[in-house]
Amino acid sequence: MMRAARREPCERTPVWLMRQAGRYMAEYRAVRARTTFLQLCKNPALSAEVMLTAVDRLKVDAAIIFSDLLPILEPMGFDLEFSAAEGPVIHNPVRTSADADRVRELEDLDPLGYVIETVRQTRRGLDESLPVIGFAGAPFTLASYAIEGGGSRSYLHAKRLMLRDPGAWSSLLGKLARAVTAYLNAQIDAGAQIVQLFDSWVGCLGPDDYRRYVLPHARTVFQGLRPGVPAIHFATGNPALLPLLREAGGDVIGIDWRVRLDDAWRTVGHDRAVQGNLDPAVLLTGAAEIRRRVQDILDQAGGRPGHIFNLGHGVHKETPVENAVALVEAVKELSAAGTP
Amino acid sequence: MMRAARREPCERTPVWLMRQAGRYMAEYRAVRARTTFLQLCKNPALSAEVMLTAVDRLKVDAAIIFSDLLPILEPMGFDLEFSAAEGPVIHNPVRTSADADRVRELEDLDPLGYVIETVRQTRRGLDESLPVIGFAGAPFTLASYAIEGGGSRSYLHAKRLMLRDPGAWSSLLGKLARAVTAYLNAQIDAGAQIVQLFDSWVGCLGPDDYRRYVLPHARTVFQGLRPGVPAIHFATGNPALLPLLREAGGDVIGIDWRVRLDDAWRTVGHDRAVQGNLDPAVLLTGAAEIRRRVQDILDQAGGRPGHIFNLGHGVHKETPVENAVALVEAVKELSAAGTP
Repeated sequence: MMRAARREPCERTPVWLMRQAGRYMAEYRAVRARTTFLQLCKNPALSAEVMLTAVDRLKVDAAIIFSDLLPILEPMGFDLEFSAAEGPVIHNPVRTSADADRVRELEDLDPLGYVIETVRQTRRGLDESLPVIGFAGAPFTLASYAIEGGGSRSYLHAKRLMLRDPGAWSSLLGKLARAVTAYLNAQIDAGAQIVQLFDSWVGCLGPDDYRRYVLPHARTVFQGLRPGVPAIHFATGNPALLPLLREAGGDVIGIDWRVRLDDAWRTVGHDRAVQGNLDPAVLLTGAAEIRRRVQDILDQAGGRPGHIFNLGHGVHKETPVENAVALVEAVKELSAAGTP
Repeated sequence: MMRAARREPCERTPVWLMRQAGRYMAEYRAVRARTTFLQLCKNPALSAEVMLTAVDRLKVDAAIIFSDLLPILEPMGFDLEFSAAEGPVIHNPVRTSADADRVRELEDLDPLGYVIETVRQTRRGLDESLPVIGFAGAPFTLASYAIEGGGSRSYLHAKRLMLRDPGAWSSLLGKLARAVTAYLNAQIDAGAQIVQLFDSWVGCLGPDDYRRYVLPHARTVFQGLRPGVPAIHFATGNPALLPLLREAGGDVIGIDWRVRLDDAWRTVGHDRAVQGNLDPAVLLTGAAEIRRRVQDILDQAGGRPGHIFNLGHGVHKETPVENAVALVEAVKELSAAGTP
């Protein structure tokens, strides 16, 4: 995994899955029956345990820490709740310039100490040949939650603030970018060997808006990270942003399934590594279809150094665990066999 | 508008807006206060009236008939309801091969006579210099509603059927493609001078799945349309599909805002017309920003014949009407002034 992130030759393609510890797994559901999602995130021993269990079950090549994008917003002044029905809810969303002013700089990481401790305990429990991946939400995606107050379909509140009050927008994203940088560096200091920045919702923007309103803040994050630690820049929902994601930064560019991996890698440039890009819906089929699709993606990667196999987005909760296991086995076996 | 659809030179760029008659408009809300959405769709006089009112208010260059994507599903055996809270709901969705078998061929268009009558009454009430646009949902988008039973975020039921039971999938999409073709031809016979096929949700697929599971059915529709009537092929959510949309058919390719218009037109090929592509969120700003963005899109079109100005998706209900009016005025004025 570390070699692939640096585009060094590997004996086979490394593989892990976004949301590899999650509701599709019985062991995870058993833990969640005893605790809320936010309580679980705030319990480092349990967070490490659910991830280590998933790594053991799937035999993947990396452990991303078990956490969420949104806890970083709490010490910045947001009132965050995970509701069973609606998912994440922020009770005091940013809608005006005055709201943006009230968002606090993250000067003290102590309130996020539980995440840092999760990194440590995950690192301690993990086979030493496997890396721990730290992560954070990207400034745009965090801002979209902070402004919408939760999930959204069209991100109208976020876009309205962005377009009507670029000063407030820039102030908010600047605070988020600085917070995320410090947060990822703290994860690195605690033992994370790779970090991933999730810009999960930025695909709702076109390239010109991305360049103007988002790219400078994403770049702030990548430029501020500890040198020598590979960073993965992941976005979803809009293949037309790929050249700009590269421009913003990241040693590895995450690719979703809306574009062929070969086309995406050519667009990103072969001087960067890529991660992806199976449609997670394929995990709802069966072993034969999964194997066929894995081979197809490996063929597109063409044995070129610098490919990390992953889904194009997180594992769906409807996924049979045996299919996730079959995926990992197929990647290991077919990539070791080499491409024809 | 007709000249632009045929890539003939125009004195200025024609403009209309998807969902130009809708909840953002007080006149429309007044009508809806007295009737449900489905009752309105089934009342040709009222459907024609709401569209003619919108055309008059906005001074756009075309009237799309007021209707919805889903009524075509009723005579095919689906139990359709528009709920105020959840939007469209289909109470008997297709989940199995047996369900797909039960879907009826649309052999008789009489049950959709109210749509055909809406075309006639819209044509009758409209200034004769303006065209009436007929429309239908594309096979994939109709199938996604028919399978999911309503809106969806990840289209897992649809993808599962598509990948696990390609026979049932193909049977369902074949029936939908034949139904849509007959339905659009009936609209043309009743006076529609242009037709638009809406593949609103197909952006959840990657190019290989589109080519294999969707393209043949979209092509069936375009190949079956009355010759000589320009057809607009609109999809949203994935710029990587543009070359395949072109391949499937359509004289005009609809472009959403996730890609620059100049890049999109180059990808589609300058031997096709294009329609688009302002982010509808821009209509939540103000006249100055709208004007700036219109100029930018006109500059990208570069005065080349074959550009129809539109949004990249429908007007949001939060849009101030005066901003929609300002958009239409800006397109007319700035395109008549010529590009620098």
